[in-house]
Amino acid sequence: MTAKISLGGCFPPIPTPFDGNDRIDHDRLTANLEQWQKTPLRGFAVLGSNGESVLLKTEEKVETWRTAGKAITSDRHFIAGTGRQSTKETLELTEKAAVAGANAAMIVTPHYYKPRMDHTALCAHYTFVADRSPIPIILYNVPGFTGVDLEARTIIELAEHPNIIGLKESSGNVVKMGQVVHAVGDRFQVLAGSGSFLLPALSVGAVGGVMALAAVAPFQLQKIVDGFAKGALEQAREIQLGLIAANAAVTTGFGIAGLKKALDLMGMYGGPVRAPLRPLDKSQRDELEQILKKTRVLEG
Amino acid sequence: MTAKISLGGCFPPIPTPFDGNDRIDHDRLTANLEQWQKTPLRGFAVLGSNGESVLLKTEEKVETWRTAGKAITSDRHFIAGTGRQSTKETLELTEKAAVAGANAAMIVTPHYYKPRMDHTALCAHYTFVADRSPIPIILYNVPGFTGVDLEARTIIELAEHPNIIGLKESSGNVVKMGQVVHAVGDRFQVLAGSGSFLLPALSVGAVGGVMALAAVAPFQLQKIVDGFAKGALEQAREIQLGLIAANAAVTTGFGIAGLKKALDLMGMYGGPVRAPLRPLDKSQRDELEQILKKTRVLEG
Amino acid sequence: MTAKISLGGCFPPIPTPFDGNDRIDHDRLTANLEQWQKTPLRGFAVLGSNGESVLLKTEEKVETWRTAGKAITSDRHFIAGTGRQSTKETLELTEKAAVAGANAAMIVTPHYYKPRMDHTALCAHYTFVADRSPIPIILYNVPGFTGVDLEARTIIELAEHPNIIGLKESSGNVVKMGQVVHAVGDRFQVLAGSGSFLLPALSVGAVGGVMALAAVAPFQLQKIVDGFAKGALEQAREIQLGLIAANAAVTTGFGIAGLKKALDLMGMYGGPVRAPLRPLDKSQRDELEQILKKTRVLEG
Amino acid sequence: MTAKISLGGCFPPIPTPFDGNDRIDHDRLTANLEQWQKTPLRGFAVLGSNGESVLLKTEEKVETWRTAGKAITSDRHFIAGTGRQSTKETLELTEKAAVAGANAAMIVTPHYYKPRMDHTALCAHYTFVADRSPIPIILYNVPGFTGVDLEARTIIELAEHPNIIGLKESSGNVVKMGQVVHAVGDRFQVLAGSGSFLLPALSVGAVGGVMALAAVAPFQLQKIVDGFAKGALEQAREIQLGLIAANAAVTTGFGIAGLKKALDLMGMYGGPVRAPLRPLDKSQRDELEQILKKTRVLEG
Repeated sequence: MTAKISLGGCFPPIPTPFDGNDRIDHDRLTANLEQWQKTPLRGFAVLGSNGESVLLKTEEKVETWRTAGKAITSDRHFIAGTGRQSTKETLELTEKAAVAGANAAMIVTPHYYKPRMDHTALCAHYTFVADRSPIPIILYNVPGFTGVDLEARTIIELAEHPNIIGLKESSGNVVKMGQVVHAVGDRFQVLAGSGSFLLPALSVGAVGGVMALAAVAPFQLQKIVDGFAKGALEQAREIQLGLIAANAAVTTGFGIAGLKKALDLMGMYGGPVRAPLRPLDKSQRDELEQILKKTRVLEG
Repeated sequence: MTAKISLGGCFPPIPTPFDGNDRIDHDRLTANLEQWQKTPLRGFAVLGSNGESVLLKTEEKVETWRTAGKAITSDRHFIAGTGRQSTKETLELTEKAAVAGANAAMIVTPHYYKPRMDHTALCAHYTFVADRSPIPIILYNVPGFTGVDLEARTIIELAEHPNIIGLKESSGNVVKMGQVVHAVGDRFQVLAGSGSFLLPALSVGAVGGVMALAAVAPFQLQKIVDGFAKGALEQAREIQLGLIAANAAVTTGFGIAGLKKALDLMGMYGGPVRAPLRPLDKSQRDELEQILKKTRVLEG
Repeated sequence: MTAKISLGGCFPPIPTPFDGNDRIDHDRLTANLEQWQKTPLRGFAVLGSNGESVLLKTEEKVETWRTAGKAITSDRHFIAGTGRQSTKETLELTEKAAVAGANAAMIVTPHYYKPRMDHTALCAHYTFVADRSPIPIILYNVPGFTGVDLEARTIIELAEHPNIIGLKESSGNVVKMGQVVHAVGDRFQVLAGSGSFLLPALSVGAVGGVMALAAVAPFQLQKIVDGFAKGALEQAREIQLGLIAANAAVTTGFGIAGLKKALDLMGMYGGPVRAPLRPLDKSQRDELEQILKKTRVLEG
Repeated sequence: MTAKISLGGCFPPIPTPFDGNDRIDHDRLTANLEQWQKTPLRGFAVLGSNGESVLLKTEEKVETWRTAGKAITSDRHFIAGTGRQSTKETLELTEKAAVAGANAAMIVTPHYYKPRMDHTALCAHYTFVADRSPIPIILYNVPGFTGVDLEARTIIELAEHPNIIGLKESSGNVVKMGQVVHAVGDRFQVLAGSGSFLLPALSVGAVGGVMALAAVAPFQLQKIVDGFAKGALEQAREIQLGLIAANAAVTTGFGIAGLKKALDLMGMYGGPVRAPLRPLDKSQRDELEQILKKTRVLEG
């Protein structure tokens, strides 16, 4: 069994920077991480959905983790996204991430064979990996991309495993989050999977979030967490509601290309996306910029 | 333009009591309402989805409202569920409800011709009724039954109408609730459509809820509202999470038959459901009773 | 038990004509039926989804059936759409349709309480009505409007009932149609629910169709049935594929307003739709006309 | 531009045989292919969804194609499933498959970033690969696994490309197949993606199918194709309807584990599936065997 880690706080699932030749730009990755570490972010999810993980080769993934492992300081968590369709490959990748310095693995549900991914199959998949992984596991549920929705009972059963420490829930289903928190108590940590529902997730017992928006609005999101903790609900709500449009812009609205463009606008490095993802066109870029200005995200 | 009313608080969408001959039992309806008026419920939604509205004839609806109009005291709100597929019939029913004493109408989205129920059609429908209705209108979005999902932009546009005062949102989409609250401010009131997400809805600015669970657990739900208002978040959360199982039992789990059986178990009158709805079988009744005991709902 | 009737052939679910004051125009209904009876249509479905059934009051429905009962000659079938949410009201309406002259009732699945409309509830609903109905029953499955999908096993079980004679299947699920035909044989008749898949439905054993397109292209659709019957597959296919665009125009594309406009263009009477349905705008009307010209539907 | 090939006929998407240590069993793959080549199968899809493609490493894929390339005789087509999430990796894999002897590539829609996979992105993805591929491309649409549904207009636009020769359509949407056939004519070939709707697909112009069922019932499926071609529709229908239950058993019912078990029962080699897929339990195996016996699939 591996050491549990406390996940309270805000984590960005960081985008992977590519240079003009579609190669991973390790220097810019390091520079971005240095910049983010001047903020109150609790840590980083490296190669989640927003890291274009499914568009990278295995070698590229390992190199990305190595760079991250060097750049992320010991006071922040380094969570690696290691999920694959194959159970065995998921374990192999998790082991490689651990060697590169990750101190937790966030594992998306396998999903290609949807009709077969029932309670039994998902429990067996995660248990196989958790039994053998050198680092603790965070379940990752994102039905908008996978078409698979981890049920409360599956999460609750898996939470019994000493090496499964939490859940990133991207569906926005606050009732399910509440059910899980109620059933599992403190030994398991629920994380909001989007900055659009951080506050309502906290209200039912989540401890923080892994949110694309955290890459561009770390201070504001941390204020929601802090405001909630000290009972300053009205202020927390004002910030939360004010961020919904910006959150949509870097997720459902313009996707990873939008998130990367937002980083460019902030003076960090976003850069191009990898095909089949597409760059924003001029009108999309203008609309994104306007939304970010209006929601004051560019002011930090 | 009609007078606005304040919707803060908890409302049950009350079930319609039938006798052994499938006729509406007006005496029992009156008795139930008297019993509920010993609780802190803010008012009642009469003939919403849980009132088996779609299974009643027009005459039965009007008679039910008349009985409710007499039984509901002036310090509580009487909200009538008056939505029909036809725009004109919706207005006619709304007028009849007003005559019977309703002081607001909750109008479900028309939905049979789903592919045609776009922003334009829904705005035209609600505007036609709101322009002419003698009582204020509450939008009612319940995609689980209708297959139509009112978009944030439609709600926000309709919120401009002086006679449209609020929204019952049953989808559990707290992000949408937040968007609406952010855009419309205080002149429009958002109500949670289920007791399973009352607290997270409050956290993004809802003022209360119209919730089946309020028919059986009015005190606990009110404690969530009160706890939230005074910043006693931990206590509010504990109650909220403890109620999720009971909420499921009287909604998604066992439906209206479950809600009615719960009333029977509490010494009020639930009685039979109307076909094609089906009564619970023995094992379902036992399971329901166990859940209600475990969640202490029967203790009031 | 009532007499079985043979459903082989093409049936339009006829639109309900309204005059400029939103009242049913019985003279035009009669005139339309006279016109259609100069074609090879096997009969008429009066007050199906395309008849705006859910937008009519009960009195209006009965009057419409009376008019149809007088206008439809004895060599054609008069099928009435009599489904309601309530089981008992469905029976009552079916009895009224029979009195007005209908010789079969097409009954849409009850659907508001979707999560409760399981195999048991649907079997009980249809069996209750079929046991008591003076005319035979045709099941009507249209998940695009109802959100409920009759399963093959439910259809197969209901097909055992001597007074349930067929199915209008609007989902386009040809595999399910094949399963049903395979299981029930000749004593039960499957009808395609859209003109876009008449030929593939015939290929798995359907006997005809109840199709909006039959109101505007009765000759072409009948040619598909005839061509298929005599093995002239290539000709049947050519007609079928050529009609897909026209079919979409009067169904998924422009809805009932499109179907009515197409009738207007053909010199019959379509007229306005009832709110919340909306009339076509100018560009939609132009597009519709172009499609009908291109697919030669206006040539008859 | 590469040479077009004629796809008329039946193709199994063959399962990948693993030995007891979860390694690919190349001898058994060869033996299976030899066995299948005693049947009228037109060719083989190697590493489609049923080949557990997403569970194999790149090296394993290439080795599998090499073995297939040697075993498949020149009178049969060797179609390789080469789709990946990344556009560039898809091309790389396609080139490797060509070197291994594949004479066409079947490319599943990229799908992880569903909301971004619109008409433009999908056209760009397929065009990039088709422009550079040494072998012709077959589009592969399987929304049940991918959650992405190729629209008719996207298919029709891509069919203009000289190196895109066909479509495997697994959705069962016969209307879409008809639309495509109507628009593109003979230069593009539509293949049914499941043995459950081969005949209705043929009726709207498909030329054959890539169907799991073809691995176990090649003679019966070929009889449907032949029967349809010579106008023996009733016989074709009888076979088609009789096969639906068997088809479900090796696809939606029991998945790849069911398909492999069926091969075992026929004296070929199915063997185990790779995790997270699960083996059948005893009762599932018994049910599968009964279905195959009842539908006479085991008789060949």
